[in-house]
This record gives sequence, C-alpha cells and structure tokens, in this order.
Amino acid sequence: MEEIFQIQLNKENETPLYQQLADAILTLISDGYLPANSKLPPIRKMAQHFGVNSVTIVTAYKYLEQKQMVYSRVGSGTFVSPLPVEHIPEPVANRNIRTYGSELSVENAINFSGTSLPHEMFPVDAFKKAFDEVLDREKGGAFSYMDGMGYEPLREQLCRYLESYGIKTTVENVQVISGAQQGIDIISKVMLHYGDVVFVEKPTFYGAAGAFLSRGAKLVEVPLENDGMDMVKLEDYLKLYQPKFIYMMAYFQAPTGISYSMEKKRKLLELAEKYDTYIIEEDNFCDFHYSKEAIVPLKALDYKNRVIYIKSFSKILMPGLRIGLAVLPKKIHQAVMEAKYTTDISTSGFIQRALEYYLRENGWEEHAEQMRKYGSGKYRKTLSAARKYISGMTKYGLPNGGVSLWIELPEGIGAETFCSRMLEKNVILTPGSQYSLNGEEDSHVRLSFGNLSDDQIEVGLKRMGDVLRELLKK
Amino acid sequence: MEEIFQIQLNKENETPLYQQLADAILTLISDGYLPANSKLPPIRKMAQHFGVNSVTIVTAYKYLEQKQMVYSRVGSGTFVSPLPVEHIPEPVANRNIRTYGSELSVENAINFSGTSLPHEMFPVDAFKKAFDEVLDREKGGAFSYMDGMGYEPLREQLCRYLESYGIKTTVENVQVISGAQQGIDIISKVMLHYGDVVFVEKPTFYGAAGAFLSRGAKLVEVPLENDGMDMVKLEDYLKLYQPKFIYMMAYFQAPTGISYSMEKKRKLLELAEKYDTYIIEEDNFCDFHYSKEAIVPLKALDYKNRVIYIKSFSKILMPGLRIGLAVLPKKIHQAVMEAKYTTDISTSGFIQRALEYYLRENGWEEHAEQMRKYGSGKYRKTLSAARKYISGMTKYGLPNGGVSLWIELPEGIGAETFCSRMLEKNVILTPGSQYSLNGEEDSHVRLSFGNLSDDQIEVGLKRMGDVLRELLKK
Repeated sequence: MEEIFQIQLNKENETPLYQQLADAILTLISDGYLPANSKLPPIRKMAQHFGVNSVTIVTAYKYLEQKQMVYSRVGSGTFVSPLPVEHIPEPVANRNIRTYGSELSVENAINFSGTSLPHEMFPVDAFKKAFDEVLDREKGGAFSYMDGMGYEPLREQLCRYLESYGIKTTVENVQVISGAQQGIDIISKVMLHYGDVVFVEKPTFYGAAGAFLSRGAKLVEVPLENDGMDMVKLEDYLKLYQPKFIYMMAYFQAPTGISYSMEKKRKLLELAEKYDTYIIEEDNFCDFHYSKEAIVPLKALDYKNRVIYIKSFSKILMPGLRIGLAVLPKKIHQAVMEAKYTTDISTSGFIQRALEYYLRENGWEEHAEQMRKYGSGKYRKTLSAARKYISGMTKYGLPNGGVSLWIELPEGIGAETFCSRMLEKNVILTPGSQYSLNGEEDSHVRLSFGNLSDDQIEVGLKRMGDVLRELLKK
Repeated sequence: MEEIFQIQLNKENETPLYQQLADAILTLISDGYLPANSKLPPIRKMAQHFGVNSVTIVTAYKYLEQKQMVYSRVGSGTFVSPLPVEHIPEPVANRNIRTYGSELSVENAINFSGTSLPHEMFPVDAFKKAFDEVLDREKGGAFSYMDGMGYEPLREQLCRYLESYGIKTTVENVQVISGAQQGIDIISKVMLHYGDVVFVEKPTFYGAAGAFLSRGAKLVEVPLENDGMDMVKLEDYLKLYQPKFIYMMAYFQAPTGISYSMEKKRKLLELAEKYDTYIIEEDNFCDFHYSKEAIVPLKALDYKNRVIYIKSFSKILMPGLRIGLAVLPKKIHQAVMEAKYTTDISTSGFIQRALEYYLRENGWEEHAEQMRKYGSGKYRKTLSAARKYISGMTKYGLPNGGVSLWIELPEGIGAETFCSRMLEKNVILTPGSQYSLNGEEDSHVRLSFGNLSDDQIEVGLKRMGDVLRELLKK
C-alpha cells in the first residue's frame, strides 16, 4: 500500500480532490501495483496523510466501488476487487424465458427435447390401486382442504426416501410441493425482494432463472467446469455481490449433465457459510445414476443448514402427479407455509394420499431400479450411436447418469443454425442459447434421449452426422 | 379560478416564489374556494400573469401533486384533487397475511371458519369412475407433461359451463389453473411490477391481498357498500392512482357476502374502460345462489375485454382437485403461459382428464343443484338460529347465497375479544381484522356455516348469544 501514499494531490487543480485520488488509485490497480483483495488504507489515516476532509476519501472509495474496482465489507474496510474490470459479470435482470419445442409439434419428429421416460414406464397400475384404496378408505375426505405443509404420513415416507441418500431430516422440515418448479417459485417468493442478487450456474435451467427474474432479482452467472462451478470465480463474485442464494444442481445438471466432485461440494458449503448465503439444490435426476459410485447430494453434507433441497418426482415417478418435496432450514418454515398458501393453498390431498400409499406399499427401490436400468440402456445406445456418427466432429462429456448429452458443435457452427437445419430433417434438439441468460449464440446443443426408441436414437444421430458434414463443407 | 389570480407573490420574500404560490393555492383548496376536479390555469397563462418563469409554476404544481392536493392528466392539465387530504387512502405495501384457524385445532370445536361443504357431499363415486376410465383409456399417457394452457377437451367443457352463466368465450382464452389462488398468483406475476398499485375491496380476501403484496404491489382499499364498491370513491381514487387492476368478487364476496347490483357492475366496467385498467373477478360461490334471480358475472357483461375471470371449483366440486379456470384477454395469453411454466409447469394432466370425463358424462347441473340445495338449507337454518339468539344485538346482511354471514357486533365489542371469548366456549369464528389490510380492530365476525350440522349451528349461535349478553353487561 506504500504506493498509495506516494500519490500527489493538487488543490489548485480544477478536478475535485476525490476524483484525483480515485483516478490515481485506479491507475495503481490497473497497473498491478495493488494486488487483488488487498486492503486500502483506513479513511482516517488517508485523510490525515493527504490533509483533506475524510468525506473526500469516502467519496473517492465510493466512486471506485461504483466502478467495481474495489468492494467494501462492513466493519472490515475497503478492498481491491479481485477481477479485472472486463471480467466482472454484469448481473442480468430481465429476459423473456421461453420453453423451446412446445410450439414445435412436428408430426412424427424425432424429439430429443423431452426429459421424461416413455409413459409406458410409469407405475400406473400401482397408482391405480393406490387411488382406489385412498378413495375407499377416506371417500370425500381425501379431497378436503389440508395442511399447507402436506399430508404428514406422506412426509414420513419422504423422510425415509431422503435417508436412503444420506439426507437425515424430520417431518417438520419437509414441505410438500406441487412439483420442483413450484418449489423454486415459492422459495423465490419467500427469499427474494426486488433487486436482490442470485447466483446461477452458467449455463443454467431457464425455468428456475425465469422464476428468479420474475421477482425482480438480478442474476450473476458462475461458469461451470467439468466438476462443478469454478470455485475461484465463485469466491471472487461472493466478494463483489451478496447473493440471497446460489442455485445449483449437484447431479446431472440441466443442461450440461455435469456432477459436482466431492471436493467442490465441500468447498461450496464452506463458501456459503463464510459469505453467509444459502444454496438451492434442485435434484431431478439423482436416481438415474449409471455408475457404481455412491450418490451424495449436497444436502447430505449440509451440517450448517445452508442448503434448501428441492426434489422432483416428475422424472423418477411421473410428471402428471405434480408433486415434489423441499427440505427447509427451520428459519424459513413459517414464511414458506404462508407463501405456499398464497401460491396454491396446498398440494392436492388426494394425490398426496395416493403417493403415501404407493410408497408405503411398494417402496422406492424396485421401481427406481427399473427406471435406472431403462435410462442406462438408452444412455449406452445413445453413446454408441454418437460414437458412430458424430464423435469425430463434436465433443461431449460422459455424465454417467440422467437422460441428456450436452454436445459441443465444431467451431464455426452455431447451435441455432444447426437446430433449424435439424428441424428440416424432422429432428428436434434444444440449442444451448436456451440456457444462456442473455440468449447469446452458443456452440452447444442438448440432446435428451430418455423418451425415444433405439431406432429413433440411431436415425436421429445419423441425421446429425449428415447435417454436420454438410455444414462443415460450406 | 378567479381566486388564483388574486394571489400576491412577494419577490423580496425569503420563501421561494413557487412555494409562496403553492401555499396560497393550498389555502384556497382547503378553504373550499377551488372545487374538486376543477382545472388549475395553464402553466403559460400563470407565468404570464405573475411575471415569473414557467418553471416556477411547474414546480408549484408538482409540489401540490406530491401533497396529493392536485392530480395531473397527461395532455389535459392539472386538477384539484377530489378528496380532502385526510380521506386520501394511503396505499398499503406490506402485511404479514396469515390464515386464521389453521393453528386452532381445538378438538370437537364448532368451527365456523371453513367455507367448504362436508366432504360427504363431494362427488367421489363419479370421480372414482372418472379416474378409472382415464387410466384404462390412456394409461401412463395420463401422467405425461402437457400443454401449459391445459387439456384442450377439458377447456371445451369449461367453455360450455361458462356459457351457462352468459360468459361466451373460446378455448384459446381459457387457461386451466391449479385452483383460484394460483390464478391470482399467476396474474400477479404477469401484470404486477414492484411498486405498482392494485385496488381491492375493503374488506378483502387475505389470500389475494397476500399474493399482490408479495410482488411488491401497493394496495388501495375501496370501501364496499351493500351493492358493491362505492363508485364515487372508486372514481376519485382512479384519478389519483393508476392501478394495474381492480380485484373484486361480484357474488357473495369474501368476507362480506355482498353481491354487486347490475348498475354497479356496469359502472365498474365503464370506469375500467375510462381509466384504462383491468378487473380481476374471482368467483368461488356463484353456483351457490339461493334466490330466483339470474346470476350475471361481471365477465358476462364485459364487451371491452377488461375482465380477467378466475373461477374456483373447490367449492362447487371439491378442494382436493386443485383445479380452476381463468378467462383471459388475448393480450396476456402468451405472458400467462410463460408465468404458468415458471409457477408449476402445468396443472396435473391426470386430474384434468378426470374432470373432463366427469363433466362430459355427468354435466354440471345435477350436482350443482344438490350443492345449492344443501347450502340453501344450511343458510336457512343459520338465519333462523341467528334470529333466535343474536338478532337483537347484531346486524347482518342477507346474502341469499354462499356459505357465510358477515355479522356486525354491538358497539363497544371488538371482534378479536369476542372471538377469543367464543374460542373458550369451543366455537371458532373469524374476526373481521383478518380481512383488513392494516389488521385494525374490526367490529365484524365472519360465520361460515356450510360444513356444520344443524345441531352445531344451533348450539354455536346460542353460545354467541350468551357471550354477547355477557359482554354487553360489562
């Protein structure tokens, strides 16, 4: 910090003193004399040294803060921003989030945009029995208004399911929700105020981003690496912004398919604690794991109660149930209950009772095993077709779970162009731009294979190969 | 306006000229010299007359506008506010909305706080058949993800239902929602931004108010009269604020039970058009009408497409279905679809299909007639018990529909006190303060009789009489 005290201020100069000082510090930072996260001298010391009013120093520091060259932490002082200006993410505050493919109802198309398994795999017979049992047992009572948190016997069953993944909790922490998306929406209602900051993965799932943005939040994107968020950047950003929470998926992330390493999971929890923020972990696909490795949701490691865990049953059971669960820190129980009320009063008591019966009578494991096996078969089929038709021209990770591949196209081929061209060949893919907050052109496409026959997978990937070759020739 | 030109400004005075002018106009208004809605002289004329810069006049008018003593209408000028200052409603921007009674699970209490009919009245057998048929017909397909607007054959059935109440619309205007509360929540998501103003009835339903407030809206309460909102006040307020919409219930309003007269319905629509705003009409009870008078929802009169109509099926069918409908102006279709997606993706396709089957096979009328008859019987029972035990001491309207009475207590008896005392007697009532935005003490209680036996109604009202007499003695 020696350099700062060598700055010369000129009281005769037209430029205000605070501006002279700020400009000089700015130059020192840009020239690399003041390292990232180093502390600027205290206001009083500066005022004394330069023989100026302390307001001048405060104003200079404020100016630098607005320029995002420094950040301040209450009670500890002002520090040099760790990021070169051009790398500071500009929070995104608005985007029309749209679903892709819903308007594309091309007859007989090979549709790689759906993330469900075929409905022949849904446990319909077991649920039919469950519906009958519930109606015979409770008659109209099954359709009454009910406790906003959910049907207690169901919450007991859900605790048992959670325990099988190492998440230990009790009924009073479990909120029944009408699907994961509603969970995201309700948590946003409770935690977000206009102008708040939320961190999301880059790329991220548009449904969640849409819910955050609709509450007036500003989103900051943290780049994903192969094993989770870039933790260095995450900490840099945590110094600049105070997010209300960090939204992430620990397993088979949408859209990239990546899963977090144990190391990054621990680091993420550590950072959430250090910077006093929360994490929303959305989990749609953890049951679809195709390797022998144990599944450890972030929530299972969450000893400090920093994680709000949101689980969808749309993938492992069936979407039409519209049911899911959230595990909540005690602090927000009451607020979530109230938000649930103004959202939809409660989740259907009939469906809740049927799910309770289903879980109690059938358990999870057998059905989950079937779904997993089926998904795994499709995964292997997709990989083998990809190797055959597109592997030379594209890159993709091996998620070893879930129902999607995230495919990087050859340089120079935009995903939107590619997807339009594929659509002409009757194949629907999702372009990566759907998962980018500013909708910028992207070189990735998402290919979801869970709902297609082996033949369709084969033909679809063959056509991708054809189109790629054709575009590469140009 | 002669008086304004007699104002004397003193350029030697310390008080700025604009302030002198504003103060003088303020005095003229307060003293009644400038009638409500009269136009202030144009800026240029004023500047000329007083020999000052036009900025001075603009500043004076702005100052008066901030004080809400005048209002301006773009292109037409500045007008004297129609309201004495003390009567201008201060918008309410925050309240913890809570449900009452949910925490009161007193065993064997006589609970006058529920607005459902007994679940023995629910059409469970017909729905059991519907569930079976749907599952046999569509198997797992019944549980797939589906069109965000809703199952089209169901929307066709809903159009038919709407037509029976004079609402003519087509499938593309009908959005399926997971209950009326979700409809309110989604419309708020689409139409409200932080700081927007919404008009509500005074008193109003806390569930809706909670949804508006949670989006950062400010609420202005328009007093209810026996036949609907006070239309003079409504227009006065419309001159002062530009609400995004007006929230109301045309029939058996919650909590007062009042219904709008035809005259007020027409006036409301006229004002919405004149002041370019929308109306959200929530309809939970119009099927429960006990007189011969025809039911004409506001939406049935809505030739200018100013009304968003939200219908709950929780009362006429059963709450546990979590299903309802919204009729939307074309302008907001796309935005509602997107908001529905970020709210819960879609309403359960299984339940939608079952409801479609039910409506197609059973129609509405027979079941509605049964529900109406039942409600009407309870209504008459309640009135006769009220006449017997409390009519000398209290006042209440005769809603001739719905399942609640709104009872005014004798002067000097607060509703909170009364409800606590009743609770000791094992009777649960809802105090009027629940429906007031600022939670102020109120002299009303709401008594809902739909879910109680004749005996319980008799005993409950007898105890009310006892407690009233006891409190009046003090």
